[in-house]
Amino acid sequence: EELRAGGVTGVNATCAVWDGPADTLGAVAQWYQLAADNDDIVTLAETSEDIRNAKRDNRIAVLLGFQNSSPFGDDYRMVEIFHRLGVRVAQLTYNIQNLAGGACYDEHDSGLTAFGRIMIAEMNRVGMLVDLSHVGNRTCLDAIDASRTPVAITHSNPTWFVDSPRNKPDEVIDALAARGGV
Amino acid sequence: EELRAGGVTGVNATCAVWDGPADTLGAVAQWYQLAADNDDIVTLAETSEDIRNAKRDNRIAVLLGFQNSSPFGDDYRMVEIFHRLGVRVAQLTYNIQNLAGGACYDEHDSGLTAFGRIMIAEMNRVGMLVDLSHVGNRTCLDAIDASRTPVAITHSNPTWFVDSPRNKPDEVIDALAARGGV
Repeated sequence: EELRAGGVTGVNATCAVWDGPADTLGAVAQWYQLAADNDDIVTLAETSEDIRNAKRDNRIAVLLGFQNSSPFGDDYRMVEIFHRLGVRVAQLTYNIQNLAGGACYDEHDSGLTAFGRIMIAEMNRVGMLVDLSHVGNRTCLDAIDASRTPVAITHSNPTWFVDSPRNKPDEVIDALAARGGV
Repeated sequence: EELRAGGVTGVNATCAVWDGPADTLGAVAQWYQLAADNDDIVTLAETSEDIRNAKRDNRIAVLLGFQNSSPFGDDYRMVEIFHRLGVRVAQLTYNIQNLAGGACYDEHDSGLTAFGRIMIAEMNRVGMLVDLSHVGNRTCLDAIDASRTPVAITHSNPTWFVDSPRNKPDEVIDALAARGGV
């Protein structure tokens, strides 16, 4: 109700931060239920057309998303599984190193791993946005380069604004923009 | 190739026997991959139209199915999750008691449990066939009665043919048929 009052068209709803595949199923199911129980206010969106329709109907478009790639476990095929379940955005790493790459609070960022490359290729194939917000700078640059489609930094600021590990230097932002990312 | 040579139109492919939600995701993903790698021979079917199209194209229609309700864990919302992933058939119990009810090798069949009733209601809602093949007779009768849509015994024989716990007495078969089941 607050989002609608505020004129928000759509939100990326976090279904997983540290969770593995099984726990994430429960979180996704909870969003299905929440959306079904409140379909006068929200609707789950899987396409840009769904978002346009939601706006027309004065409903908030909810996009299911992950803040981490932990829901994929060590199996790139989970990308297709969760895409089928409606997930459209996934961050590669969350604050610390995982199987896909390094993160913004790591002392040494591994860069994008071999598994991370396969994950991005699969996300590109099925149509899931790569989010780099909490990802380390080296892994960000690798991911921007590896992705066949534009990637996004959905919730960070530039380091020139505030010099925090959670923010991005011009080098990363410029590389992102050069490939059509947002 | 053997199924096609044999003139088979479609098969119910077992994705889970004892597996819980997470392991079942892997099995479903494996079927996606197998189907994608062999799309000259098979196609995953989610609707009767898909089966007709497969037959027209001389391909085997593969329906994803469960021999147990273990993939739903203790959460009825997993029914919708796996329906979205393409699963169209699920057996309530496999040989021994589970959360949903009793099975064909149990000494005492609990009958359909409260959770089993919720599970069937959810299967009815999303459109997933209730299979009773390895289910106990008392639970079979309860399930036939509880389901709003016809249920099926996909792989058992009548006990008059061979008197085995895996086969069904006339009482169960007649009740099934009376409600339009197969």
